[in-house]
Amino acid sequence: MEQNTDSVFNFSAGPAGLPKAVMQQAQKELVDWQGLGTSVMEISHRSKEFIKVAEEAEQDLRDLLNVPDNYKVLFCQGGARAQFAAVPLNLLGDATTATYIDGGYWAESSVAEAKKYCQPDVFNAKTEIDGKLAILPASDWKIAPDAAYVHFCPNETIDGIEINDLPVTDKPIVADMSSTILSREIDVSKYGVIYAGAQKNIGPSGISIVIVRDDLLGMAKQVLPTILDYTVLAEKDSMFNTPPTFAWYLSGLVFKWLKDQGGVKGIEKVNREKAALLYDYIDQSDFYRNEIHPVNRSLMNVPFQLAKPELDATFLQLADEKGLKALKGHRAVGGMRASIYNAMPLAGIQALVDFMKEFEQAHA
Amino acid sequence: MEQNTDSVFNFSAGPAGLPKAVMQQAQKELVDWQGLGTSVMEISHRSKEFIKVAEEAEQDLRDLLNVPDNYKVLFCQGGARAQFAAVPLNLLGDATTATYIDGGYWAESSVAEAKKYCQPDVFNAKTEIDGKLAILPASDWKIAPDAAYVHFCPNETIDGIEINDLPVTDKPIVADMSSTILSREIDVSKYGVIYAGAQKNIGPSGISIVIVRDDLLGMAKQVLPTILDYTVLAEKDSMFNTPPTFAWYLSGLVFKWLKDQGGVKGIEKVNREKAALLYDYIDQSDFYRNEIHPVNRSLMNVPFQLAKPELDATFLQLADEKGLKALKGHRAVGGMRASIYNAMPLAGIQALVDFMKEFEQAHA
Repeated sequence: MEQNTDSVFNFSAGPAGLPKAVMQQAQKELVDWQGLGTSVMEISHRSKEFIKVAEEAEQDLRDLLNVPDNYKVLFCQGGARAQFAAVPLNLLGDATTATYIDGGYWAESSVAEAKKYCQPDVFNAKTEIDGKLAILPASDWKIAPDAAYVHFCPNETIDGIEINDLPVTDKPIVADMSSTILSREIDVSKYGVIYAGAQKNIGPSGISIVIVRDDLLGMAKQVLPTILDYTVLAEKDSMFNTPPTFAWYLSGLVFKWLKDQGGVKGIEKVNREKAALLYDYIDQSDFYRNEIHPVNRSLMNVPFQLAKPELDATFLQLADEKGLKALKGHRAVGGMRASIYNAMPLAGIQALVDFMKEFEQAHA
Repeated sequence: MEQNTDSVFNFSAGPAGLPKAVMQQAQKELVDWQGLGTSVMEISHRSKEFIKVAEEAEQDLRDLLNVPDNYKVLFCQGGARAQFAAVPLNLLGDATTATYIDGGYWAESSVAEAKKYCQPDVFNAKTEIDGKLAILPASDWKIAPDAAYVHFCPNETIDGIEINDLPVTDKPIVADMSSTILSREIDVSKYGVIYAGAQKNIGPSGISIVIVRDDLLGMAKQVLPTILDYTVLAEKDSMFNTPPTFAWYLSGLVFKWLKDQGGVKGIEKVNREKAALLYDYIDQSDFYRNEIHPVNRSLMNVPFQLAKPELDATFLQLADEKGLKALKGHRAVGGMRASIYNAMPLAGIQALVDFMKEFEQAHA
């Protein structure tokens, strides 16, 4: 059975939906790319044709995020979880600790991995305001004086929490931006390292981006597997090992698509409209609720609960039949979660809200 | 310009050509897979639909290689170079050395990485017989008594060398099969660990396979990044971190295609015909030569030199115009290299030999 894909909206938290225009282009050229008679995934990563793809993708990403010249952009494998190890192994130097700001599930996962390499200093930034989950303001975060860096996760995919503050520190700031990168404007020069798994706002799973300030290179520990060594990857233009070429190519198409949307500034405007439409509807409803304080609500991941959780399965089934896919919440939180990354159009949120209204009217 | 892709033959060493039938199926379902209205790369790796893909791929690989039940099959990221670190970090235990059989470039690269974690005991197996490069018989290989394992690379992609022997040892044998896996029948039960980057005989770059005997689990060193920990990957069905789902799916399609070719036994027959056609032609020619002793000639990678190296560029250009792509040899060896993995049909070798004859007649 083939679907009219224009009426399907995919709310998957990741691997997430990609822009339809990108997927259509990828499909068109899948078996014959640039008249070569083969796919882009069937040519050498060292061919002039692929190197052009790789360089353009990097330049487009630099343009989109306004990455300063003293930062290297690396394309890696292993996702954010590989970076949970790579960050301490690349950045600790002689230090034995780093401060980790705990705002949710992924921050806690990065701490667990860091414990292999140091004694992380963990600051629990989670709090409650007016019965809603919130994050303490950055001015309250305690940072260890001997920390090599300060790590935080600005968007918690599972909890639906976003941190708008930056740590107040002169130490290198390291951010796991897997689920927020390219969704809103940021000032890269404020960070030491930014990393992100691709499978939310960049491309398919299997590739990740690291943006690292060049004065932080050269400190890798001996035991670091070379495939995760920022210095080697920077020297080798991310081709120390064979890179995931098709994922790199697709990411490049997404970057070009994003430029066509007005860049990060343009998509941020749409993302704020999308989030407002959904949160506003939830807030005025007695049937749905979101547990996060408005100040820390995620622009990208909107968990919501039904007043009658016994209807969760019915909600999911009817939504799916309407083409509203992958709305089931993470098992740690339950209920629903709408992941509304860059590739989700406003029409998708409108379709979701329309469905939620219908469902509320039928079941409230 | 679109090419008639039926007359294009891609001799890339890797990322290499994939079976055309696989690429056509992938193209057909790229934007609407199984009627879901999205691509397989846009759904959760934990969805029932993707888990079916993952499980089928593993089962098909087990069937193809007749993998015994006491072996785990893992799908990883980072390619063979990641395994160069993962092998010592997973297998050394309390040992401080492992024996590495040096048969060429990739064996030497694995030694360089192993030096981060132990003092590898390197046995140089390269020799010369009748002026041709060859590998000493395995009975001559010296293995350190305190080695935790014996590592070798049965097919050297760059040098065009194949090792048909197995180390004579009761220690775990570890094989980097990146460019030979699934090309010929093997007895998995003789190995401790088999690993392979996908981008030659399995799928696109960005995914790799590890087959590990289960008694070798549980010895990982503390400093091993968890994404490379065989024990964790085995426990989590290779989903500790988000796997490269599209690459996994494509690998699964290749496994099904290979079953349709009569499995490894069937493809080995074709591979031997392909190699014989090309080597026989080279051997009877005074214009082309291959530097490897017949006993150690690779079935997968056939380097050859022109009697007049000043014609290399002309050869490559004319070949390319005929649709014979990516024949340039590795810079370490020079000349030409025809990589003729499973996806290369016999017709491709015939087209190459026909062209070589023409070129020889015109330029000898």
